[in-house]
Amino acid sequence: MSNMKIAVIGGDGTGPEVTAEALKVMDAAAKLEGFTIEKTEFGFGGEHYLKTGEILPEGAVAELRKFDAIFLGAIGHPDVAPGILEKGLLLQLRFQLDQYINLRPVKLYPGVETPLKDKGPEEIDFVVVRENTEDLYAGIGGFLKKGTADEVATQTAMYTRKGCERWLRWAFEYTQKRNNPKGKKLTLVAKTNVLTYGHDLVWRTFQEVAKDYPDVEPDYNHVDACCMWMVKNPEYYDVIATTNMFGDIITDLAGILQGGMGVAAGGNINPDAGGTSMYEPMGGSAPKYTGQNVINPIAAISAGAMLLEHTGQPAAGARVLKAIQTVTGTKMKSQSAGKMGYGTSEVGDLVVEALGG
Amino acid sequence: MSNMKIAVIGGDGTGPEVTAEALKVMDAAAKLEGFTIEKTEFGFGGEHYLKTGEILPEGAVAELRKFDAIFLGAIGHPDVAPGILEKGLLLQLRFQLDQYINLRPVKLYPGVETPLKDKGPEEIDFVVVRENTEDLYAGIGGFLKKGTADEVATQTAMYTRKGCERWLRWAFEYTQKRNNPKGKKLTLVAKTNVLTYGHDLVWRTFQEVAKDYPDVEPDYNHVDACCMWMVKNPEYYDVIATTNMFGDIITDLAGILQGGMGVAAGGNINPDAGGTSMYEPMGGSAPKYTGQNVINPIAAISAGAMLLEHTGQPAAGARVLKAIQTVTGTKMKSQSAGKMGYGTSEVGDLVVEALGG
Ligand SMILES: CC(C)[C@H](C(=O)O)[C@@H](O)C(=O)O
Ligand SMILES: CC(C)[C@H](C(=O)O)[C@@H](O)C(=O)O
Repeated sequence: MSNMKIAVIGGDGTGPEVTAEALKVMDAAAKLEGFTIEKTEFGFGGEHYLKTGEILPEGAVAELRKFDAIFLGAIGHPDVAPGILEKGLLLQLRFQLDQYINLRPVKLYPGVETPLKDKGPEEIDFVVVRENTEDLYAGIGGFLKKGTADEVATQTAMYTRKGCERWLRWAFEYTQKRNNPKGKKLTLVAKTNVLTYGHDLVWRTFQEVAKDYPDVEPDYNHVDACCMWMVKNPEYYDVIATTNMFGDIITDLAGILQGGMGVAAGGNINPDAGGTSMYEPMGGSAPKYTGQNVINPIAAISAGAMLLEHTGQPAAGARVLKAIQTVTGTKMKSQSAGKMGYGTSEVGDLVVEALGG
Repeated sequence: MSNMKIAVIGGDGTGPEVTAEALKVMDAAAKLEGFTIEKTEFGFGGEHYLKTGEILPEGAVAELRKFDAIFLGAIGHPDVAPGILEKGLLLQLRFQLDQYINLRPVKLYPGVETPLKDKGPEEIDFVVVRENTEDLYAGIGGFLKKGTADEVATQTAMYTRKGCERWLRWAFEYTQKRNNPKGKKLTLVAKTNVLTYGHDLVWRTFQEVAKDYPDVEPDYNHVDACCMWMVKNPEYYDVIATTNMFGDIITDLAGILQGGMGVAAGGNINPDAGGTSMYEPMGGSAPKYTGQNVINPIAAISAGAMLLEHTGQPAAGARVLKAIQTVTGTKMKSQSAGKMGYGTSEVGDLVVEALGG
């Protein structure tokens, strides 16, 4: 019986509650598939920062590297200024662990409501592969004459050939494996007509890498057109590859189409040998719902399914994904906090029950 | 009887067709309001570029400055590489004429279909005030070791205090004047938690300018959250102020919510004394529909209404806007090209007819 070792960062607000449900489901799936999950908790987050002034303690990243994967609940605290935890914790982990793929499956589960007319699970089923280490997220910038009427501020997006190539190659390979019966298509979403330096490199790399995957149709949308199209014709998309900043935007748009924060999950993946990846629900820490057993754990459980799938246990991952869909399709009344028809932990129990099926 | 002098750039593809309808309606409205419109055509665009190699001829901007306003149909040609016409013509005009406000009213006209469930004209009615001269649109960037495996490319977003202040002040004043009965609210859309230099300047300026408009509620959304929220709860928004790049994205998203390219229009406004502004439908040149009398002219006619409104003829502008809504609400079957139930020029005629009402 193999043993999976994961690091758990429950985080702030409702983070620990949804994390508990995800772990419960993952454990049950592991049992059915004949392996175990060993969990080590890390108390990082806003609470910890406010108490100790420490965001990511010295040596923490080295410690985290030893795990097979990381599960992250939610980070964010109303008393901490914007940017501090995001840059100090979430982005630090993404960068230091070189998690260069941000993977966001966008799937409307049965029974889940989308805000779009006439679109169902058939139409809303694509994947976004966001680059996760470059672009405007580099944190490069500065001020001239700060605080004066003549102030100038800059923020520089930086892209490397290596960074573009590894991400795009992964996206092409993912598209190949996904093997969409409607046709294998990878749509690059960028803004080549305005970002004529940065996105020129992205575009050239895309064209070159595409040559190695002749069975995948290479496609291109400007980011603005993509936002229109995703709302009007989500069925157009199979896999989307996009840069970090635009990825941030379009994955949230995609998230609302699939039912919102209660459902959407993502992976920050370092696919290299020995790389440590991190999986997280997309919802924030939702402090106002903390401790009330009303928050929706489906997104966290989906993140758990992704973790299993990408950490050598695809059968367990598939089992969880199927169970989630049984529960959304036949049990839950809504995906909104407090309106599910069940409490947070009951939803977790329902998914556990459905695992056998 | 006063006389308005406008420059007309019909442009490429279906641009001239929709422009003709807009001008027809504007002329009829002017007649009813007792003024005339003198039109001078400029043959810029992809066709002209392919024939002559010239995008914006020497002296053209000086010439355009002499007009009260510019009407732009559509620029874009399938045989011209991306970026050339956009940067060489559209962005050049925005920058050289210092049209620092990109104004996008987002209004679901009666009878127009939105892709959103349970949302109607009451819910989809807000305005985006996009900054139009700074940010990633500055065109600043470069390459290191271009074409090698070590290539690095940059694209720098640049913001100035002056640029932020004039745009945000205009947005606050616009919010004040719009005087939404549901409450005057200006939502800044940015990404302060990641763009901690560039958007720090934007944020500080927003907070300071807000003090001068105590009757306007200052509000803030991260751009990713805004995309979710705009789809889930468009009624939340009154006026949105956003930076150039994010504005490009969210105005297209907003455009699809209000019925798409056939309906959405915008103004590139230089509100300073003597400034020359330019109004345009959001749809592209749609080459495949050229010359078939099937393209929807409503967006272009709306751009005409905006031109009138902001060029000293608000009564004429309001008249056109009202007539448009009569036609969408009582006549047209759809806002999609070829499905309107009428040809392009018939839709123009219908709006002219409705002007008297
Ligand atoms: C919290 C924030 C820094 C982060 C991002 O911008 O990447 C989040 O929005 C996300 O998409 O994971
Ligand atoms: C054509 C393009 C350069 C332009 C932009 O990016 O601003 C367009 O998308 C717009 O929104 O007017």
